[in-house]
Amino acid sequence: MQEKISRYEDGLARMQAIFGPGVVSELSRLAETSPDVARRLVEFPFADIYARPVLDLKTREMLTVAALTVLGYPQGELNQHIRGALNVGCTREEILEIILQMAVYAGFPAALEAVKTAASVFAEQQ
Amino acid sequence: MQEKISRYEDGLARMQAIFGPGVVSELSRLAETSPDVARRLVEFPFADIYARPVLDLKTREMLTVAALTVLGYPQGELNQHIRGALNVGCTREEILEIILQMAVYAGFPAALEAVKTAASVFAEQQ
Amino acid sequence: MQEKISRYEDGLARMQAIFGPGVVSELSRLAETSPDVARRLVEFPFADIYARPVLDLKTREMLTVAALTVLGYPQGELNQHIRGALNVGCTREEILEIILQMAVYAGFPAALEAVKTAASVFAEQQ
Amino acid sequence: MQEKISRYEDGLARMQAIFGPGVVSELSRLAETSPDVARRLVEFPFADIYARPVLDLKTREMLTVAALTVLGYPQGELNQHIRGALNVGCTREEILEIILQMAVYAGFPAALEAVKTAASVFAEQQ
Amino acid sequence: MQEKISRYEDGLARMQAIFGPGVVSELSRLAETSPDVARRLVEFPFADIYARPVLDLKTREMLTVAALTVLGYPQGELNQHIRGALNVGCTREEILEIILQMAVYAGFPAALEAVKTAASVFAEQQ
Amino acid sequence: MQEKISRYEDGLARMQAIFGPGVVSELSRLAETSPDVARRLVEFPFADIYARPVLDLKTREMLTVAALTVLGYPQGELNQHIRGALNVGCTREEILEIILQMAVYAGFPAALEAVKTAASVFAEQQ
Repeated sequence: MQEKISRYEDGLARMQAIFGPGVVSELSRLAETSPDVARRLVEFPFADIYARPVLDLKTREMLTVAALTVLGYPQGELNQHIRGALNVGCTREEILEIILQMAVYAGFPAALEAVKTAASVFAEQQ
Repeated sequence: MQEKISRYEDGLARMQAIFGPGVVSELSRLAETSPDVARRLVEFPFADIYARPVLDLKTREMLTVAALTVLGYPQGELNQHIRGALNVGCTREEILEIILQMAVYAGFPAALEAVKTAASVFAEQQ
Repeated sequence: MQEKISRYEDGLARMQAIFGPGVVSELSRLAETSPDVARRLVEFPFADIYARPVLDLKTREMLTVAALTVLGYPQGELNQHIRGALNVGCTREEILEIILQMAVYAGFPAALEAVKTAASVFAEQQ
Repeated sequence: MQEKISRYEDGLARMQAIFGPGVVSELSRLAETSPDVARRLVEFPFADIYARPVLDLKTREMLTVAALTVLGYPQGELNQHIRGALNVGCTREEILEIILQMAVYAGFPAALEAVKTAASVFAEQQ
Repeated sequence: MQEKISRYEDGLARMQAIFGPGVVSELSRLAETSPDVARRLVEFPFADIYARPVLDLKTREMLTVAALTVLGYPQGELNQHIRGALNVGCTREEILEIILQMAVYAGFPAALEAVKTAASVFAEQQ
Repeated sequence: MQEKISRYEDGLARMQAIFGPGVVSELSRLAETSPDVARRLVEFPFADIYARPVLDLKTREMLTVAALTVLGYPQGELNQHIRGALNVGCTREEILEIILQMAVYAGFPAALEAVKTAASVFAEQQ
């Protein structure tokens, strides 16, 4: 019991560090429909995986931006993780460079969709 | 000729059983652009495949919710099939459980997109 | 500590129930390269998710056969889960029917690859 | 009844025109595991779709080589369709050009896998 | 230097021939966020690849419509290339036939999403 | 002319730095079937993209390992890039950590396929 609570709390703290305090209300909205997906999202990626010392948070977020660009369809999650990447120390230039590199591995449509999402994140932040 | 009409009629009746009577006008709208895609959609999945006795309609719709969650991009079709799944006897809990399980096989972004679509279906129905 | 051991043990027992006793040596081989992927595989899908009561094991394995057919590339995992599905009560007819239905949602190449894998599982078992 | 037989026969004749007489024994092998996938494969793509006059067989096979290159995983089907494309009038240069163009839309890994498959088809034919 | 300018100019002229003069302002908007993705898009697909004589522009656009239908998620790019395909000599019937054929290789959800995009292009043009 | 040669030579030198001298004969084998795909592979990713200063080679190879793990089907290319990643300074632990993280974004089958490929690279190098 004890342990389960601390996995959740650990993951939630890490999500706030990456995505900012607004992530709490986004999780609440997700949990209204699926409390289980919300809980697993906090615990599995952000407590079990992102806590591991082998890669730092900036590198992890860069890898995630690459992964979501390749998948192509989850532009809502890419929006979140571009914001997350900027919060943990990525520059805009690095994010756009990751997207450009993904044109090599997943094609130009993947890169073009991701640039549009990056543009909307950058615009929100001005 | 005879046979062709009955494949279409059989498929259309099954689509109405799954998706409700509104599917007829949705098919008409599709047929305005592509009568051939509309006709094949009625005949191939819903007459040739869904009519087969090995799996019941509820199981078929559960499998389709899984398939569309994995594909990730066809959220319009997922919306339709979540409504279909509910119509043929799935509970909301079962649909959300399928989506949660797909996080294992297609990752969390796939599950998160599907939860959003499920949420919008559930909200429409209240 | 206690809890962590029991999640692993619970997941491992469930994997043995699904895949048979041979899964233990397969996990050992996986753990030689990546003990972390092996541990997470036991704990996340097979303890956290498959243990949940909303869907029974047979339904879960059917959904997984659908998911892996749609993904197309993980034929090694599909081989495993077809064997798993048979172990937990699916018939060969049901597995082939799932694959046929996936031709609708992911196209014929997905179905053809999956039939080849099903054929090799069925042949091993004769 | 009549009609069903002729759809199958029509599709089978078209498959032989595209893939050569060897396709009959390949279909038999497929039908040993799944007679339904085999029958639907003959009837749906090769009777219902490829028979339509809007696109000629050469164009259809070029589109299919593009589609399978983009999907990436079904290299067995790509092998078949490269042979089919050559049979219905494509040149090797055209096939390689399609694959090169797909590097733009699906990335270099897709193109590299397809070139390997094309190389093995070309080598068999010498 | 000389050469680099001419690759860009050659690609830009070809993009205008395919997509119409409006593509220049779309490229400018893309270049505001990522000048490098914009430049590579002009130079790699439209100067290096589409300039090659083996396939004509109409065939290339047909292949691209197939590729984007299969990928499924890049409906914005599909919208562009359906307009491009019409500009370089494809008929609406050919475009819808390509989409129908892709139902065979990528499933009905891919075809249904593409028909919706084709419908919106056709409607814009009336 | 001048410029074109130097793009190729620059890309080839970078490929040798990443993949070792053996890459030259692999490119020759590729060029026997498709000299154009071989040339574009050297020039576009490895001259135009990887030469850019925003990301170092180690980061680029980590991103590529992530991308190929997500795509799932190009295990031959993943094998190459895992070797490349090790050559430019990644540790085995980092590569396995990237693969583990990709279980979150692309599911466990993607991670399991990639671990098998990593295992075969590590075994070759002992």
